[in-house]
Amino acid sequence: MGAGRIAVSAGLKKQFFATRTLTAALAAPLSDADATAQSMDDASPTKWHLAHVTWFLETFVLRDHVAGYRAFDDRFAYLFNSYYEAEGARHTRAHRGLLTRPSLAEILNYREHVDAAIDHVWNNLPVAALQLIELGINHEQQHQELLLTDILHLFSLNPMLPAYWPEAVTPIVQQSTQTQWMQEQSGIFSIGHEGSGFTFDCEGPRHEVLLQPFALATRTVTNREWIEFMSDGGYGDARHWLSDGWGWVQRESITAPLYWRRDDEGKWSSFGLSGLQAVDPNSPVTHISLYEADAYAAWAGARLPTEAEWEVVAAAHDPLGGNQLDAASAVKPVLSADSALFGNAWEWTGSAFRPYPGFKVADGAVGEYNGKFMSGQFVLRGGSCATPRGHVRASYRNFFYPHQRWQFTGLRLAKDA
Amino acid sequence: MGAGRIAVSAGLKKQFFATRTLTAALAAPLSDADATAQSMDDASPTKWHLAHVTWFLETFVLRDHVAGYRAFDDRFAYLFNSYYEAEGARHTRAHRGLLTRPSLAEILNYREHVDAAIDHVWNNLPVAALQLIELGINHEQQHQELLLTDILHLFSLNPMLPAYWPEAVTPIVQQSTQTQWMQEQSGIFSIGHEGSGFTFDCEGPRHEVLLQPFALATRTVTNREWIEFMSDGGYGDARHWLSDGWGWVQRESITAPLYWRRDDEGKWSSFGLSGLQAVDPNSPVTHISLYEADAYAAWAGARLPTEAEWEVVAAAHDPLGGNQLDAASAVKPVLSADSALFGNAWEWTGSAFRPYPGFKVADGAVGEYNGKFMSGQFVLRGGSCATPRGHVRASYRNFFYPHQRWQFTGLRLAKDA
Amino acid sequence: MGAGRIAVSAGLKKQFFATRTLTAALAAPLSDADATAQSMDDASPTKWHLAHVTWFLETFVLRDHVAGYRAFDDRFAYLFNSYYEAEGARHTRAHRGLLTRPSLAEILNYREHVDAAIDHVWNNLPVAALQLIELGINHEQQHQELLLTDILHLFSLNPMLPAYWPEAVTPIVQQSTQTQWMQEQSGIFSIGHEGSGFTFDCEGPRHEVLLQPFALATRTVTNREWIEFMSDGGYGDARHWLSDGWGWVQRESITAPLYWRRDDEGKWSSFGLSGLQAVDPNSPVTHISLYEADAYAAWAGARLPTEAEWEVVAAAHDPLGGNQLDAASAVKPVLSADSALFGNAWEWTGSAFRPYPGFKVADGAVGEYNGKFMSGQFVLRGGSCATPRGHVRASYRNFFYPHQRWQFTGLRLAKDA
Amino acid sequence: MGAGRIAVSAGLKKQFFATRTLTAALAAPLSDADATAQSMDDASPTKWHLAHVTWFLETFVLRDHVAGYRAFDDRFAYLFNSYYEAEGARHTRAHRGLLTRPSLAEILNYREHVDAAIDHVWNNLPVAALQLIELGINHEQQHQELLLTDILHLFSLNPMLPAYWPEAVTPIVQQSTQTQWMQEQSGIFSIGHEGSGFTFDCEGPRHEVLLQPFALATRTVTNREWIEFMSDGGYGDARHWLSDGWGWVQRESITAPLYWRRDDEGKWSSFGLSGLQAVDPNSPVTHISLYEADAYAAWAGARLPTEAEWEVVAAAHDPLGGNQLDAASAVKPVLSADSALFGNAWEWTGSAFRPYPGFKVADGAVGEYNGKFMSGQFVLRGGSCATPRGHVRASYRNFFYPHQRWQFTGLRLAKDA
Repeated sequence: MGAGRIAVSAGLKKQFFATRTLTAALAAPLSDADATAQSMDDASPTKWHLAHVTWFLETFVLRDHVAGYRAFDDRFAYLFNSYYEAEGARHTRAHRGLLTRPSLAEILNYREHVDAAIDHVWNNLPVAALQLIELGINHEQQHQELLLTDILHLFSLNPMLPAYWPEAVTPIVQQSTQTQWMQEQSGIFSIGHEGSGFTFDCEGPRHEVLLQPFALATRTVTNREWIEFMSDGGYGDARHWLSDGWGWVQRESITAPLYWRRDDEGKWSSFGLSGLQAVDPNSPVTHISLYEADAYAAWAGARLPTEAEWEVVAAAHDPLGGNQLDAASAVKPVLSADSALFGNAWEWTGSAFRPYPGFKVADGAVGEYNGKFMSGQFVLRGGSCATPRGHVRASYRNFFYPHQRWQFTGLRLAKDA
Repeated sequence: MGAGRIAVSAGLKKQFFATRTLTAALAAPLSDADATAQSMDDASPTKWHLAHVTWFLETFVLRDHVAGYRAFDDRFAYLFNSYYEAEGARHTRAHRGLLTRPSLAEILNYREHVDAAIDHVWNNLPVAALQLIELGINHEQQHQELLLTDILHLFSLNPMLPAYWPEAVTPIVQQSTQTQWMQEQSGIFSIGHEGSGFTFDCEGPRHEVLLQPFALATRTVTNREWIEFMSDGGYGDARHWLSDGWGWVQRESITAPLYWRRDDEGKWSSFGLSGLQAVDPNSPVTHISLYEADAYAAWAGARLPTEAEWEVVAAAHDPLGGNQLDAASAVKPVLSADSALFGNAWEWTGSAFRPYPGFKVADGAVGEYNGKFMSGQFVLRGGSCATPRGHVRASYRNFFYPHQRWQFTGLRLAKDA
Repeated sequence: MGAGRIAVSAGLKKQFFATRTLTAALAAPLSDADATAQSMDDASPTKWHLAHVTWFLETFVLRDHVAGYRAFDDRFAYLFNSYYEAEGARHTRAHRGLLTRPSLAEILNYREHVDAAIDHVWNNLPVAALQLIELGINHEQQHQELLLTDILHLFSLNPMLPAYWPEAVTPIVQQSTQTQWMQEQSGIFSIGHEGSGFTFDCEGPRHEVLLQPFALATRTVTNREWIEFMSDGGYGDARHWLSDGWGWVQRESITAPLYWRRDDEGKWSSFGLSGLQAVDPNSPVTHISLYEADAYAAWAGARLPTEAEWEVVAAAHDPLGGNQLDAASAVKPVLSADSALFGNAWEWTGSAFRPYPGFKVADGAVGEYNGKFMSGQFVLRGGSCATPRGHVRASYRNFFYPHQRWQFTGLRLAKDA
Repeated sequence: MGAGRIAVSAGLKKQFFATRTLTAALAAPLSDADATAQSMDDASPTKWHLAHVTWFLETFVLRDHVAGYRAFDDRFAYLFNSYYEAEGARHTRAHRGLLTRPSLAEILNYREHVDAAIDHVWNNLPVAALQLIELGINHEQQHQELLLTDILHLFSLNPMLPAYWPEAVTPIVQQSTQTQWMQEQSGIFSIGHEGSGFTFDCEGPRHEVLLQPFALATRTVTNREWIEFMSDGGYGDARHWLSDGWGWVQRESITAPLYWRRDDEGKWSSFGLSGLQAVDPNSPVTHISLYEADAYAAWAGARLPTEAEWEVVAAAHDPLGGNQLDAASAVKPVLSADSALFGNAWEWTGSAFRPYPGFKVADGAVGEYNGKFMSGQFVLRGGSCATPRGHVRASYRNFFYPHQRWQFTGLRLAKDA
């Protein structure tokens, strides 16, 4: 749980319970079995998400700041700690899917128990605890997104093709335009978080960067464009690919974005939270890896933006805009108004996830939040259709390994100007 | 589904529905999540067992012998075929645990649907179909045992240590005696199934074998004896072990039977269907591999019996005797009256699972039943506490790979006389 | 080093030095680099073979029976012990190919040193030492064969296609005949070694077996027949295969015997000790696994013989006959006179390699020779073109895992009569 | 093969043949077997290095620029292409160690043949060819260093502990001082190559960077300091480590730099090109991964420098100074005069290897040189004792994956000022 500068807002209590309620709502369409299975090492069961964020609150708020609080179940720390080495031994990540007990109902009880305990002591919580609650909200929002993407991955492996949230198929008529470019000037800019709002540790310190002239596309790459890349043999031409990416493509026989499948007539559909649907050519391409994003950019004669370039442009956009998660529903990327930098799809940048100048790891278990992940991963920006609205901002840095693509990940082109 | 000589008994219908009822009863203590998870490649989810045996009946009885029967769900053949290559493509074995849908309730509906369909046409079924039903009963009995051993394995990996079937702990006071030996004469004997009862294909043809003088222990090896082997450094002394076994012990860091754990004071307990309990010194040791059984025998200056030796002795015993599965309950191996060769623990023999002289593989999908597994595995005899009573007989040949030990597997010593 | 009953023959000294000389001759065509590389875990470098058999003699003859003998190099025990746990730690098998030092020249010096030391004390050696020398000869003969098959495997992976022993290509005009059958009677027979000659431990005790009427083909299966099996889709039809074999075929994409390759016009050639040559349709098929042999037999409506059946027939044949290794040369399987059971190709039997009734493991390090390998492997009989003439006999039991095929392995059909 | 701006110097011919001669000299202490073995996927055989750099010259100079040149051996392109996808299929990297043919002598002939051919046409070579020769020199220098580090790795796995280059052990009396810091100012600086000398593509374009105030240690971390880190439990404390690094340490049981071993009395020695020697406390620590370097810096309350910080400081140092490779000998890192930024040990930076602003991948096969490796790797700077003198400069960017440590890799601390 990364701890930057935290300012406790007046509406914190309302926001806290709204977040807790949304998480439970996201789990509502799922059975005990759905909530238990783990489809790969990168993913976690819904039940685990539900319990882990609750364990976080129980441990760092109730245990550490409420005298006399007794743990709901002493064994849960072992089961639901994720990666906090300072908090001791924990259940093997790869075996999370075998925890058929405790049941989903018991985990929901656990949530209610902790919520009630926090509600009961709310007015007496010290500032430090309230700051941890704010951290807990943001932490839980991250797991809300993971809950959705992990369930999508699980369902994608089920030949029954279950829909998390069935919806009427809406024909989409809007057409995507040609790529257009926003020209940006060179010079010294400041990036990184500053001010009173919540922020994760890795978003700061705010610092100056020097940028050369560049241009950013007004929208992310669409499925139509992606199909052109595929039709042009993009997945089979080593020249476009990073060496590690080319190895990945060949080893894993990658020929399309994750969840895409072609029918006997050559038509593409993709599996989403509403089941299998025809690929909409005007929607942003998603579920691509950094390797694919980089290869596409090379094929298109462009490149990925750096995270600094992206942030400088994003600073002028509304982080509450765009297609983001407001409620449990059939979230999916859709064609947005031009230029929206937030929502729909996380945008891969060409920047490795490394510390900003002056970055210091915080002390204690919460200090493990982001700093220790600063090798081997790339930064993504802007949030997706599965990101809770209000969670991201211009300075927000998400990060994944270059082969990972089960999040709603897409790309926006950049070029030297 | 191996089909040897099948004679349809008068009580077939009663036996059929009793078997179907017992299977459902075995699943009754389990949640949807319990019934969905798969703990290793060797094991299958309860839901899968419930559905697979039903698919077997639906396919080979209803589809093949009942005009106009329509499948309950066309997709189930893909999901619930196990290994019948002739029946087409099937779901990857290692992904069985991701099938959170269909739910346990839907699978129970499927069972009822197929049972009702069979009940409806029972009186009109041709002999061939009745023979397949008898095969289906025996097939389902095998999966009843696997259902229990697979759930045990799943629960053993859960730090919550859930009990499949809680029971009051009964102190066991009976003492095991010293090993005693049954002396057997040499000569020509007949083994293999003959006669009118049901039998699997691999149990025949009945044929003559030539045996040298030998002796068989009057009981299987106990936990007390096993602890002596361990205390004597048995797991750390290469001299006792087959080369493959020694590699397995070192690679997997094996130091005790599966499910055993030692507490801080050095006391051994083992995890069973009733949860974690102290190891009873007088009970038969179980959950050991062929490698361990063979090493123990070498350490004890004895050897494993051949399957022919075992069968010749067993022919004089009642296959309905001993501790076998009668109902859903906390089955476990217990001290038996001396000399019982059936029940409690499957007994590893020193015989590789290979065809008897004159063995022919049957035609069609059911012909895939046993013959194709005749490499790399060893024969076990006698059934266990988890084997449905009535399922085994003197000629019954079970088989597993030499490293496998999640079944209730033990050993009985033999020696040259 | 299996030690059965050993009788020291009068010509032992001559045989000993002839064996030592042949081994060095087999290595003569090889460079230091050729002699160092290890192409897979199953194979060993030539240098290792040369040194290991020498270490065996140095250890069990000179160290144990010659007072004051000082080891040539104390470090060699660590490097050149193969699997004798009782002889202490040893170099990792998979790293044998990294031992670029000691050089081939140093290893040849080591051989001469040990030979001279044995020559020097020959007349004073006790009977026990002479028996170990006889064992050492037989041990070295086994490694002569392995040296050839391991070099063949190494060279097969080199795109330069080096020939171990170039030879003029001789057109082969002889035609193989139709399969004919030798009818054998049923009854009680004795198999296993008996008498004064050298034998490995696993060949005894001699004991009676009971056989049903059977017939054995008069020759092994030819390449022509194998191509018919391939043309009939044999490698792609699951019905013919053991389940483990089918998994192996699919996982490893097996479509032909090892070393076979098809040119653009569909003609088959195979890589041998003389390089790449056209497949001779009349020669015995070799370099097939047990899985392939079993699948072929199933396809042909026959089966593999048991080892007892084979031995009963072989007892009437001359073990010194057939195509076996006499000198370093381009050994390869060729069309033999009908009915020869020895030489050309090891014949897979359907028998798992298990102990005979009454078999006891010998004490000490040499006791590790064969007994500990008695799980998971199948018996082969009869020797091959790479087996030193005089090494095998009717009772000789070779054994490999069912997927292994880098030896000259073939098959002879059997059937019930 | 990085191809940036290349200016052909007057002394190119002399430099070319000096480089070719040094490479052969580096191989001189090695046997055919030494030169053939491959100890891990990351390493290549000496023979392969010798041939690959020659193939590079033969292909891009002789084949492409000398009319009528005929390849020495048509098969060599397949064997000795490294990773140039545009040049077609190539031998599997992991099987390089199995190429016992062609022999070392044949490869040396190949080198002489190509050298003579180039000598013969030198005066008629077009500028483009001379530029490729300059590239070839620099390419070969990289392989000179790899040749040494790969041989070191191979010999380290040989229990005979062979010395590549024996030397008299010189007692080292110089003492290392306390860490001292060079204070550097903030502001805008230019980094990246500019000017007429040879450079690899990834070193440009030259561009401005903005730096915060920082300090760089006057020397790299010593073995004495590293032992303090170890004694303080540095390898066992998760708090110091990147998450990927902690996983690596635990998975690989890492407890010391590569090649270090502790004797029974707790004294550390390390295996080097002169064999096993006591660890010199005053020498720079080498053979550490980025993970270890980063953990050490965290433990020491400092951090790694960015590559820009390092280059800004290095610009004032002589790249020909320090301990670098001049001739085949027992190269090893030694205590240098303070402040030397070149030679001894490659210094891990905290910068991911990514393109500079404005970087473009060159066309054709040589364009594959560096750009495609720009994911997952970290930049190292400054050269090592095994880097040919004259090869590196302030702008030189080396790169490896964060777990790799078979190069002479060390670290220099940095901190915010």
